[in-house]
Amino acid sequence: MSQSNRVRWGVIGLGWFGEVHADNLAEIPEIELAALCTRRPERLNEIGERLGVNRLYTDYRELLADTEIDVVSITTHINDHRDIAIDALRSGKHVLLEKPMAPTVADCEQIVEVANNAKGFFMVGHICRFDPRVTIAKQAIDEGRIGKIISMHARRNLSKAIGQTVLDDISALMGDGIHDADLMLWFSQANVSTVYAQEVHPGQNKFPDGGWSIARLDNGAVAVVESVWHLPESTPYAIDARLEVIGTEGALYINCGEAGLTIHDAQGVKMPDTMYWPRPFGNYFGVLKEELCYFANCVRNNEVPKRITPAESCAAVAWMEAATESAQTGSVLRF
Amino acid sequence: MSQSNRVRWGVIGLGWFGEVHADNLAEIPEIELAALCTRRPERLNEIGERLGVNRLYTDYRELLADTEIDVVSITTHINDHRDIAIDALRSGKHVLLEKPMAPTVADCEQIVEVANNAKGFFMVGHICRFDPRVTIAKQAIDEGRIGKIISMHARRNLSKAIGQTVLDDISALMGDGIHDADLMLWFSQANVSTVYAQEVHPGQNKFPDGGWSIARLDNGAVAVVESVWHLPESTPYAIDARLEVIGTEGALYINCGEAGLTIHDAQGVKMPDTMYWPRPFGNYFGVLKEELCYFANCVRNNEVPKRITPAESCAAVAWMEAATESAQTGSVLRF
Amino acid sequence: MSQSNRVRWGVIGLGWFGEVHADNLAEIPEIELAALCTRRPERLNEIGERLGVNRLYTDYRELLADTEIDVVSITTHINDHRDIAIDALRSGKHVLLEKPMAPTVADCEQIVEVANNAKGFFMVGHICRFDPRVTIAKQAIDEGRIGKIISMHARRNLSKAIGQTVLDDISALMGDGIHDADLMLWFSQANVSTVYAQEVHPGQNKFPDGGWSIARLDNGAVAVVESVWHLPESTPYAIDARLEVIGTEGALYINCGEAGLTIHDAQGVKMPDTMYWPRPFGNYFGVLKEELCYFANCVRNNEVPKRITPAESCAAVAWMEAATESAQTGSVLRF
Amino acid sequence: MSQSNRVRWGVIGLGWFGEVHADNLAEIPEIELAALCTRRPERLNEIGERLGVNRLYTDYRELLADTEIDVVSITTHINDHRDIAIDALRSGKHVLLEKPMAPTVADCEQIVEVANNAKGFFMVGHICRFDPRVTIAKQAIDEGRIGKIISMHARRNLSKAIGQTVLDDISALMGDGIHDADLMLWFSQANVSTVYAQEVHPGQNKFPDGGWSIARLDNGAVAVVESVWHLPESTPYAIDARLEVIGTEGALYINCGEAGLTIHDAQGVKMPDTMYWPRPFGNYFGVLKEELCYFANCVRNNEVPKRITPAESCAAVAWMEAATESAQTGSVLRF
Repeated sequence: MSQSNRVRWGVIGLGWFGEVHADNLAEIPEIELAALCTRRPERLNEIGERLGVNRLYTDYRELLADTEIDVVSITTHINDHRDIAIDALRSGKHVLLEKPMAPTVADCEQIVEVANNAKGFFMVGHICRFDPRVTIAKQAIDEGRIGKIISMHARRNLSKAIGQTVLDDISALMGDGIHDADLMLWFSQANVSTVYAQEVHPGQNKFPDGGWSIARLDNGAVAVVESVWHLPESTPYAIDARLEVIGTEGALYINCGEAGLTIHDAQGVKMPDTMYWPRPFGNYFGVLKEELCYFANCVRNNEVPKRITPAESCAAVAWMEAATESAQTGSVLRF
Repeated sequence: MSQSNRVRWGVIGLGWFGEVHADNLAEIPEIELAALCTRRPERLNEIGERLGVNRLYTDYRELLADTEIDVVSITTHINDHRDIAIDALRSGKHVLLEKPMAPTVADCEQIVEVANNAKGFFMVGHICRFDPRVTIAKQAIDEGRIGKIISMHARRNLSKAIGQTVLDDISALMGDGIHDADLMLWFSQANVSTVYAQEVHPGQNKFPDGGWSIARLDNGAVAVVESVWHLPESTPYAIDARLEVIGTEGALYINCGEAGLTIHDAQGVKMPDTMYWPRPFGNYFGVLKEELCYFANCVRNNEVPKRITPAESCAAVAWMEAATESAQTGSVLRF
Repeated sequence: MSQSNRVRWGVIGLGWFGEVHADNLAEIPEIELAALCTRRPERLNEIGERLGVNRLYTDYRELLADTEIDVVSITTHINDHRDIAIDALRSGKHVLLEKPMAPTVADCEQIVEVANNAKGFFMVGHICRFDPRVTIAKQAIDEGRIGKIISMHARRNLSKAIGQTVLDDISALMGDGIHDADLMLWFSQANVSTVYAQEVHPGQNKFPDGGWSIARLDNGAVAVVESVWHLPESTPYAIDARLEVIGTEGALYINCGEAGLTIHDAQGVKMPDTMYWPRPFGNYFGVLKEELCYFANCVRNNEVPKRITPAESCAAVAWMEAATESAQTGSVLRF
Repeated sequence: MSQSNRVRWGVIGLGWFGEVHADNLAEIPEIELAALCTRRPERLNEIGERLGVNRLYTDYRELLADTEIDVVSITTHINDHRDIAIDALRSGKHVLLEKPMAPTVADCEQIVEVANNAKGFFMVGHICRFDPRVTIAKQAIDEGRIGKIISMHARRNLSKAIGQTVLDDISALMGDGIHDADLMLWFSQANVSTVYAQEVHPGQNKFPDGGWSIARLDNGAVAVVESVWHLPESTPYAIDARLEVIGTEGALYINCGEAGLTIHDAQGVKMPDTMYWPRPFGNYFGVLKEELCYFANCVRNNEVPKRITPAESCAAVAWMEAATESAQTGSVLRF
């Protein structure tokens, strides 16, 4: 850490979300946004200049070799996650890896093995686990308020305008269903027994625009994930994200799509994000910042991150990988 | 019909819902509630007296032989549907049969065959098709406002207090999922290609308290039905019924559970039914009445009921029957 | 009544809402839409032909002289209410008069005096009193479930597109606030003690587009009415109508704007009316029909309509008239 | 500031909310919770010990004399605000004063005068101005997306259980209406022209449990504030807080009461706070933290706080003071 006890952070991958990471990090007092890395020199310089960052790399290995960096965010294309995460862990950095951990369980397991022997901490950024609506729900579940979970449903739908920007890289189920797969396993503390899925592919991109997966969990619960990235232009939702958890003694309902503000103007009806990374008056608020601060705090206090374990992140990938296979083959997969 | 041109109606089966039928019928000016039938003489007399009905039968065959009756509602246990419906149709009555049509497709097909050759009209009471929220949605779909349907989800969940009164007769999927199976096929005008389901059975009754079914339709859409009759005592919902229909050009959302009135009192938070068969000031309002009037009107005008066809009612049973089998075997069923 | 015991009904005034009355009446089996009246011959013939009505009048006095008519709906401009209602009552017809009863309390009192001595029944069509969300709320209040009422708020806001079609005839407060004034007095069974109001007039029409009125009731409650006819084009609400009633032991909330169906399509986000006079598949459903049937039923059974009394309708006008004066003078009015 | 550049903070007043301040401050890395003050030695020691704070004072003047403190939160009874704020400002501390600034405008003006000549910064903690739902709304308004504001309504209602703990100190209007008075003036950038109010007092405490105030603003808008601290025990709302802003070209709606999580369990239906100061897993999240960090950041960067000015805080008190007077006298107050 820096002399002033700030965590020195580098961001590898400066796509849309890498920039959001960088922008958030730059605003957090206890963090020093110290380095950036992308293969595109122009973008690298532009963002570096804007945020006052001097350590700029087009090769992530050089960033990893920089001893003045404590932590890296890996926000690259999912296909690059495995190699960069492994290299970063081997370099001794603390690693915050964007979700999903990797495209396959096989890849995930390689990462986990390296992480288990690494000096630095490793966490996959399942951001929803830092959303207070989710964490308060998790606490209520852990306190037994809704009894034993018997049925869960999660919806996480996006406009096709957004979908089209991502669907050449990842399917809706793998890209967004991963959030809910993770939350459902976290809530239930159960494992997946069987998986079935169906996908729809109305768009022109490489991956399916929408998918549904039903899992049977080993505690007897049914868990259903819906991810459709094909809502119309007029959709008011920044994201239509809801979660229903029914237990033997109670039930709880999370609604992240209707997040407290609706604007009716010449552009129609819109419900902007107020919780994940809103930036009113030019300053970030919300859940992403919470995640980054959590990881920074672990590093500062030398405490292993417990909010999300590598094995949990791997289990979510396993479900979504199986769902993808089920959707392709039409058959039920058993674990 | 009576001299005053009123449709003379008999109700066969006086369980909870048979009584609701009778009570509604008694209030509709163009209908004459003329006969009642149940095997329980005490209940028969009690309801007959209360509603001023003289033609009281403990044997439904006698009611069917009564030439002063034009129409019968069959609101018996589902296992009795086939025989009574067939006898009623053969007797020349117009028949309004409660949903589901029958427990199996085989039974349904027998009914349909008789209905096709019957003098009277035959309709299964898929009540939701008379709900204006649903019918306006159907019109919007037919007008092409949301394009081609790609994904649907329906939830129809009830408290376990209600569930326990019914779960020895029918499962949640067959009992309530049938509504949504019917609506989804109506909306999409498609057929089921494959069916998969999972059920949960946390209660002590004969049938599973909850179920989820995914169908692939032959137009490429995914259709998902959720029916859980295990909400906690504190649930504010009279019924938590929602429907999402996503199309290539739009989306629509029906919410029947949050039906415009919420009362916070010493008993907690409650959202009473305001649409299906509410009875403010002792008079019925709503969708059931609409269904009864629709059928009465068909009879008066001698117009075949087109809102719901026997084949459609049979297709909904086929889906739920397959879902039940899938839930039991764990395998995917193909049509 | 006709030989077939149907109530023979005439509609006086064929503006937009008069036509809605006529269309609804034409669909109700126990009612015979028998006569129509408007000063515009072309419109008279057009609607008469469309609905198969032969008795067509351009002078309402001739309709009133027609002995084959039992009931009249008066759906004219508010300024004509007093004279037509009085003439209709004197002619011996049963009279269903659109709300507000008349522009001033003085006018109302003249009508009430004639009504008190009339052979026919008289009721002002405060349609919300037939809305099950409202009537179930009223029952809950009467049962003491929320204790003694201490605070009420009603919102009834419309798009400016709709507002502009009406604001040369009536203000938002008088036109829509009248509904809530009526409901609040009905709920609380109290009288207005003091009234204060503010209006806004951003539009170009004759009357103010929006108004707020606070009343102190003689049971100690505060009752606040909001009516703004200036929502943007993009508003999803057919009407944004909500009602909050807080009592010493409970509270209840009515939401008529979010009425169970939301459509996202190329036109934006819309929540169509599903309760007042929706017309799916070409047939009316809902609260207006309920009101018409209620009045028809009173006539058929020769029972004085008790749901709404003339004195109550007058009291609502008194409040809105006082609110209008308060908004103009800026002072508080005391009753 | 400390050597490690952390802002050293003291909290004066350790009632319920003072403790929330202290707890939040203790968790923020860039802040050092350095001192605490309350007249109750036992509570002082208990909280000091729990949070590891050594500088403990029973006399706030001693805390103000402590040169190792940069900032103070004043979270005392409102009646003590004026004297402590003035002393704190004179001592050279930066002062974050809880809302409302003081009970009267006269008091506020004295504070403002001292603040204008003070070395330290001064801000009243109108916490809602740090709520992203509010700040994004403010930005939309400033961008002209809803045109010129014509009508506003704010509701901020609490259960009587909470009300009873506060109503001997402050009325609902002054205690909670102050938030909305502030927001409405901020949104509209207008001044109050006239004020009218009604209060209800069903409870046994010193101050009225509920109040409504209508203000006419000098830009022509009507602004209505509702604060009722008398919701039933069963209310699901942690706080029922909503805000409607209608403009000539658009409208926006804030809903802080339905904040994304609903739990149905043996205790009934509850919607916990997820935004203001939720503490999932023992760590604070949300808007209060945002406010504290904002002020800390101003201090660290030596930038005058612009989010809320003393004059604005004074104007909100002026409105609520006038509302209180109007409610007592029954007359309209003009500014």
